[in-house]
Amino acid sequence: MILIIKNNHEKKQLDNLINWIKGLGLNIHLSEGENSTILGLVGDTSLVDIDLIRALDIVDGVKRIQEPYKKANRKFHPHDTILEVNGHKIGGNNFTLIAGPCSVESEEQIITIAKDVKAAGAHFLRGGAFKPRTSPYAFQGLRESGLELLLKAKTETGMAIVTEIMSANHIDLFKDVDIIQVGARNMQNFELLKALGRTDKPILLKRGLANTIEEWLMSAEYIMAEGNEQIILCERGIRTFEQYTRNTLDLSAIPLMKEITHLPIIVDPSHASGLSRLVAPLSLAAVGAGSDGLIIEVHNDPMRALCDGAQCIKPMQFKELVEKMDVMLPIVNKVRN
Amino acid sequence: MILIIKNNHEKKQLDNLINWIKGLGLNIHLSEGENSTILGLVGDTSLVDIDLIRALDIVDGVKRIQEPYKKANRKFHPHDTILEVNGHKIGGNNFTLIAGPCSVESEEQIITIAKDVKAAGAHFLRGGAFKPRTSPYAFQGLRESGLELLLKAKTETGMAIVTEIMSANHIDLFKDVDIIQVGARNMQNFELLKALGRTDKPILLKRGLANTIEEWLMSAEYIMAEGNEQIILCERGIRTFEQYTRNTLDLSAIPLMKEITHLPIIVDPSHASGLSRLVAPLSLAAVGAGSDGLIIEVHNDPMRALCDGAQCIKPMQFKELVEKMDVMLPIVNKVRN
Amino acid sequence: MILIIKNNHEKKQLDNLINWIKGLGLNIHLSEGENSTILGLVGDTSLVDIDLIRALDIVDGVKRIQEPYKKANRKFHPHDTILEVNGHKIGGNNFTLIAGPCSVESEEQIITIAKDVKAAGAHFLRGGAFKPRTSPYAFQGLRESGLELLLKAKTETGMAIVTEIMSANHIDLFKDVDIIQVGARNMQNFELLKALGRTDKPILLKRGLANTIEEWLMSAEYIMAEGNEQIILCERGIRTFEQYTRNTLDLSAIPLMKEITHLPIIVDPSHASGLSRLVAPLSLAAVGAGSDGLIIEVHNDPMRALCDGAQCIKPMQFKELVEKMDVMLPIVNKVRN
Amino acid sequence: MILIIKNNHEKKQLDNLINWIKGLGLNIHLSEGENSTILGLVGDTSLVDIDLIRALDIVDGVKRIQEPYKKANRKFHPHDTILEVNGHKIGGNNFTLIAGPCSVESEEQIITIAKDVKAAGAHFLRGGAFKPRTSPYAFQGLRESGLELLLKAKTETGMAIVTEIMSANHIDLFKDVDIIQVGARNMQNFELLKALGRTDKPILLKRGLANTIEEWLMSAEYIMAEGNEQIILCERGIRTFEQYTRNTLDLSAIPLMKEITHLPIIVDPSHASGLSRLVAPLSLAAVGAGSDGLIIEVHNDPMRALCDGAQCIKPMQFKELVEKMDVMLPIVNKVRN
Repeated sequence: MILIIKNNHEKKQLDNLINWIKGLGLNIHLSEGENSTILGLVGDTSLVDIDLIRALDIVDGVKRIQEPYKKANRKFHPHDTILEVNGHKIGGNNFTLIAGPCSVESEEQIITIAKDVKAAGAHFLRGGAFKPRTSPYAFQGLRESGLELLLKAKTETGMAIVTEIMSANHIDLFKDVDIIQVGARNMQNFELLKALGRTDKPILLKRGLANTIEEWLMSAEYIMAEGNEQIILCERGIRTFEQYTRNTLDLSAIPLMKEITHLPIIVDPSHASGLSRLVAPLSLAAVGAGSDGLIIEVHNDPMRALCDGAQCIKPMQFKELVEKMDVMLPIVNKVRN
Repeated sequence: MILIIKNNHEKKQLDNLINWIKGLGLNIHLSEGENSTILGLVGDTSLVDIDLIRALDIVDGVKRIQEPYKKANRKFHPHDTILEVNGHKIGGNNFTLIAGPCSVESEEQIITIAKDVKAAGAHFLRGGAFKPRTSPYAFQGLRESGLELLLKAKTETGMAIVTEIMSANHIDLFKDVDIIQVGARNMQNFELLKALGRTDKPILLKRGLANTIEEWLMSAEYIMAEGNEQIILCERGIRTFEQYTRNTLDLSAIPLMKEITHLPIIVDPSHASGLSRLVAPLSLAAVGAGSDGLIIEVHNDPMRALCDGAQCIKPMQFKELVEKMDVMLPIVNKVRN
Repeated sequence: MILIIKNNHEKKQLDNLINWIKGLGLNIHLSEGENSTILGLVGDTSLVDIDLIRALDIVDGVKRIQEPYKKANRKFHPHDTILEVNGHKIGGNNFTLIAGPCSVESEEQIITIAKDVKAAGAHFLRGGAFKPRTSPYAFQGLRESGLELLLKAKTETGMAIVTEIMSANHIDLFKDVDIIQVGARNMQNFELLKALGRTDKPILLKRGLANTIEEWLMSAEYIMAEGNEQIILCERGIRTFEQYTRNTLDLSAIPLMKEITHLPIIVDPSHASGLSRLVAPLSLAAVGAGSDGLIIEVHNDPMRALCDGAQCIKPMQFKELVEKMDVMLPIVNKVRN
Repeated sequence: MILIIKNNHEKKQLDNLINWIKGLGLNIHLSEGENSTILGLVGDTSLVDIDLIRALDIVDGVKRIQEPYKKANRKFHPHDTILEVNGHKIGGNNFTLIAGPCSVESEEQIITIAKDVKAAGAHFLRGGAFKPRTSPYAFQGLRESGLELLLKAKTETGMAIVTEIMSANHIDLFKDVDIIQVGARNMQNFELLKALGRTDKPILLKRGLANTIEEWLMSAEYIMAEGNEQIILCERGIRTFEQYTRNTLDLSAIPLMKEITHLPIIVDPSHASGLSRLVAPLSLAAVGAGSDGLIIEVHNDPMRALCDGAQCIKPMQFKELVEKMDVMLPIVNKVRN
């Protein structure tokens, strides 16, 4: 960490600051130039409150040199993390397909779709049981009974299950779920993250709609710091000034994330756009950007879907999309097993 | 709700859509023009999934006519909501001052600051016991024992307490807290909102860092829909491209919110800027914009503050600020009792 | 255009409004419901000042039904516009590659790169002569002599030239340029747009860094309204809260734009990210999203590049990238001629 | 400037980089730690291309220590710049009021409003002759004849004139204008800025709708670098995700700007919100934030205003607003002369 000290500082203020920093167990490298005095902090600066320092009267600026995330940082873990769930590998050069309806609606619905997406090439079945909706008056999911229907679909098809959790109170209900999803709105629900960090379940951690890449990795770090290092990151669009699409899918983040973290990262093209007819082009774009997989909403009757039907594609469209992706996978050095 | 239908639609598709809408219990007003066909939906459209309709092949656009929030809507509740907590009124022409440290650190600290801010004019004492921090390695608050220290300060000074909750699991711990704060990161933690809606505590609902005014009111609606209508809204800055300030304080939202909702709305100038030297000008700006109050971080030794010290002002600065505000209150038709 | 009138309006106010609207040559369709009164404006509403109406005391909201752009609107021009420049087609199922250095630096540099990118498959040569730089102290381009060097490269290689204009004063200097580029910062330099609308040159119109899709099409409309309908749109990243990448490449915009406008649209992956190692993945992503082409910065010695070297790839990397794209083009129904 | 070098760099690469930097005339301070190697660049780094360095293979990060603006920087010019125009002082502890209609419409209109706003306390008359409009089909201003009408109003009332320029071609037309305004859309029209830098007119430089504080000061620097240091900055709202207001007025920027630049800064509450009923609260907020003045749209008949009427207040409202401001000015240490 580098501190730029104001030119007109008093010696006593600077001495106080230096002593305070040393009190945190850090060494200091002082460089007094003509126009500026610079302090280099040497040691583990992850505990230093950068905002506090920035606000001190004699400080003109603070620059962080080391990333605040450790366990998620590729610097300290250079090889790709590869998870194995239900016999499928996630990460590395594996390409993972998760598909299914926005909400679980009925036994027939979820089993039919599960069979369809499995036949088309999906590895995992998604489906919402607990639904975070902006409006309290909107359908909130079948909740516990939705989980039961997902497990029936798993029994029927052998597909492992991915579904969203909304409260640490529900963790026991998720004991047979294969991958627990944390939605965008809960990305910084730190009490939930800590509780999930104490489970042994793989966690699909979606990016918050206005969270930076660094904050996203810090949320992964919350889970990892408690001992659970099985994390799959999921880009699902960020909020920008543009309102023509529901969110702006940040595909620039994909190759960047591959550089700075070893965790697998997949893309959700359905929530990003909110429009079913954009799902196919954005899926191909995500493959081109180097995504480790996709999570796609597929429904057999979009008109009747209880929520977010607008962003669902039909099983036949999903199948055609997978065929196009298969053409692309070799050029991005991925394999769909 | 207005649906604009594509020009080249097939009659059968339109008939299907109309029947589907009627099936939701709504009436339809059809208007066929030269360039466009328009459907007006008449009835309670709050249950219609606007995203689903937007994605239909024959639909060119959808426009909502009625706001999706009801209980928080001034249209159905034209008079200002005025809460009364510990003998102080909040809302209407009352100006409310909440002050205290970012984090509760010790009995001496919290009681000293409580006395100082009370003497300077504050009505309520704030202080963080449970702290949402971006990093799992940062100080997370004194938690339960922090709540106990706040209650000691209440006993000592008679000031009612405002403090943040981070999980529905903790509600019992908050039984003696006077106003429960929901932080920006939990604004869409819907399970928490529902649980708070079943309490009888006033809720201070902060705006999420990238949430729209409409989403904010929908989160208030979550609490109100469960029966608890004692809500104070709090603007604390939104996330924008500008990184020179930590957040951009959205003061334009204040006069707008006063038009569309009857709930009181206050401003947090400390978290907005993250810089103590911006607290005074932004406080005066908030008063000018018509805020119903302020929540300000005050600390007697910013250098030692365990978190967010950068944004704390000292008790003497708080006192001077209150004196300046008092000059302004008459021109915005407010009274600080 | 739909006007929602406040419930508590006075009849006289409404009559005044109706008369004023009729004075603009529009017809009115009045619908009085239980909870709201709605006015439908019928006729050419592109001249109505929507902001003025929104601000009237008795108006609760205004919704536009028709897009404000006409000549760029696919509704009135359903077939793809296909430009032909120097024997190459742009738009439709053609895939166009524009490549070259950020800045023209010397005769040797520009001719060498031109030959390299031509050999690798580029159709057009790009190169900056007039450079918009944030800092007045940064290199501003070779200006007139840069244009001369580009034309030498054209003579030498037969490649048509794409280069940026910064002022209507310079139009005469651009008389031998094949495609004139309008940069992001000048997207709403309306005096420049009007002047270019009076030329017969194809215009490459980049999206402004914080401009909506609608504003972008309105800027195309400025050029088209003056008579020049040869426009190529170029997405180059938008400004968001995320600062890890220089801009956020908005690939969701590509399939959307293909729906609403008939104009060709290409992508600039170099400026979007600002990092050469992101150029290849973002290029493949753009192809997947359905882009009609790419404009890529290529340099033979990035370390020595006078500006924006960070985002340049080398000719060999460009060649490898083109080979990968060629695998993808059939699945997006494009041909690189 | 601080460069963080990747741990796994080759010695030869680092030597090349060091030689290249020395070739730019800079000295280097090398610090090799256990986890990172850091290069401190000493000397005038304003010419170093930070983006180029950021993209080098061996560079992990770059941090700027010195601001890239010089002439606008308070560090090198600690005292407030105070302009004097037509006998009125702008900056320092002076509070400046600029008022008038959005567009000049007729001689009677502009003279009537000029008299009204002068009587209410305005120092300068504003009015648009050249109007930047998103749509080519919207009213574009009276242009040259609008300027003539403004000068008639000046003759009649003695008020100095503020009006917007849209092209360097028009500078001669503005020879009798007192303060030339550069609008938000032209903030990075660098050819225009350079041309204005060669005039001796005070320039009112509005912030671009998505431009950072740093870019804004760099645009001021463009004008100042050419010799014209008479600049007034004007905050007018930035573009954010929130669409309920047209723009988000960034009042946090005001006290920050007062710290980092010596130039006067005023606020435009009319364009920020786009709603006349928000003008008064946002004006009082701007005064509270420490603004050096306001530029406010005032019209005697908002319904008939040819553009942006929605954001105009009436002369009587302006008068009442000035009276309220006068109560506040002493607490922010300002005087309205």
